[in-house]
Amino acid sequence: MGAKVQLAEVSKGLVIFSCCFTAFIFILFLLHISGALSSVYVGVFNKGGKYERAVSIFDSVPIKNGDVVFLGDSITEGGAWDEFFENRVTRNRGIGGDTTSGLLARLHQINRSEPSSIFLMIGTNDIYFGVAEDEIVENILTIIDLLSNSSKETKIFLQSILPRASKYKDRVEAINKKVRERLPLGVTYIDLYPHFLDEHGVAIDTRFSNDALHLNGDGYLIWREIIKALVVEHG
Amino acid sequence: MGAKVQLAEVSKGLVIFSCCFTAFIFILFLLHISGALSSVYVGVFNKGGKYERAVSIFDSVPIKNGDVVFLGDSITEGGAWDEFFENRVTRNRGIGGDTTSGLLARLHQINRSEPSSIFLMIGTNDIYFGVAEDEIVENILTIIDLLSNSSKETKIFLQSILPRASKYKDRVEAINKKVRERLPLGVTYIDLYPHFLDEHGVAIDTRFSNDALHLNGDGYLIWREIIKALVVEHG
Repeated sequence: MGAKVQLAEVSKGLVIFSCCFTAFIFILFLLHISGALSSVYVGVFNKGGKYERAVSIFDSVPIKNGDVVFLGDSITEGGAWDEFFENRVTRNRGIGGDTTSGLLARLHQINRSEPSSIFLMIGTNDIYFGVAEDEIVENILTIIDLLSNSSKETKIFLQSILPRASKYKDRVEAINKKVRERLPLGVTYIDLYPHFLDEHGVAIDTRFSNDALHLNGDGYLIWREIIKALVVEHG
Repeated sequence: MGAKVQLAEVSKGLVIFSCCFTAFIFILFLLHISGALSSVYVGVFNKGGKYERAVSIFDSVPIKNGDVVFLGDSITEGGAWDEFFENRVTRNRGIGGDTTSGLLARLHQINRSEPSSIFLMIGTNDIYFGVAEDEIVENILTIIDLLSNSSKETKIFLQSILPRASKYKDRVEAINKKVRERLPLGVTYIDLYPHFLDEHGVAIDTRFSNDALHLNGDGYLIWREIIKALVVEHG
């Protein structure tokens, strides 16, 4: 009899644990899809981990005057820029997962020198993390202002955010449009967006991406083709 | 009465669901720590995702005779080799998460040409995924054999697996030792391992890594210092 009661107690405990655990996972899931965890993600990403390591690696090889800088997130990071433009000194300053605020926090690494040109693309991770559209736009414009003011010798190219899965279409297009309309004189806008769209005009073409976000080799070769003349002229 | 019965049914359903869900997560956890999921991880990693994209990007910029190739996983990938060795044409052929079998599957990308030198480091992810020690050793030796046989013009440097968290110490040291003892003539072993150990001699020094696996800028500068003369001589 005593053993039976004990067993019942254990079962009850298990059931309560299971329910609590399921509820916990469910709440976590709700917080995730509502975007409420975005600042947690960004915080965890920025403190320690890959971001901190990359900034430390960049510090170990400072940019010199005249270099060509590629600045952004994983899409920039994935580019073999030194191999795409063998006759230029290129600096890959992309960090996987980086956001506009992450980039603002490391902008001093770029502003210490006078690169010949900067090819900037940032913002797609902000959208994923649920950062408000206007905040993304303001951050991109602030980055451009800070870069422009720190070096008059540097030619700045803003590259549009690329298409990704169709559910991001409206936000990507809205941010690209708003930034483009407010771009300061002297900054050149490079509209990569249409080159990577699929035939329906809603998502990134599967010929250029296997995860609806990052580029494969064919994607990078198109990107290289679009900016080649600019790198040569301003590199 | 009917409503009460229905409610009881719903509760019962919820409890059963919770229990099953918890059991599922628990079994997944057990499979994970037992290493039984390792081939699933490697499979998922290799098909689609980052590995496939990286291979595609490497295909878009083939290695040329005389290049210096850095071959490996995320630890190689993280190195800004083109910036560390500005006067050489370097090729970063590291892919985050790659394993000895992943590298074997893409070795044709290296073997198509005659690089002046190859700096190889691979195996730490195999250990993490629970691949058997002897299999890792055989794979590394096979990689070296295939590289040696494809090009007599290429100088091959095998770099030891770096220390990571202390629980990996014995396996890392055993693999490094076994490979070193069986290294073919003509292949140079570069013992990076002791340079990155902490003061207790059991784990990677926190001065060089913020996640007990990947290197920061100071870590890469030490690595560069160790191989600099070799890159200059054989680059």
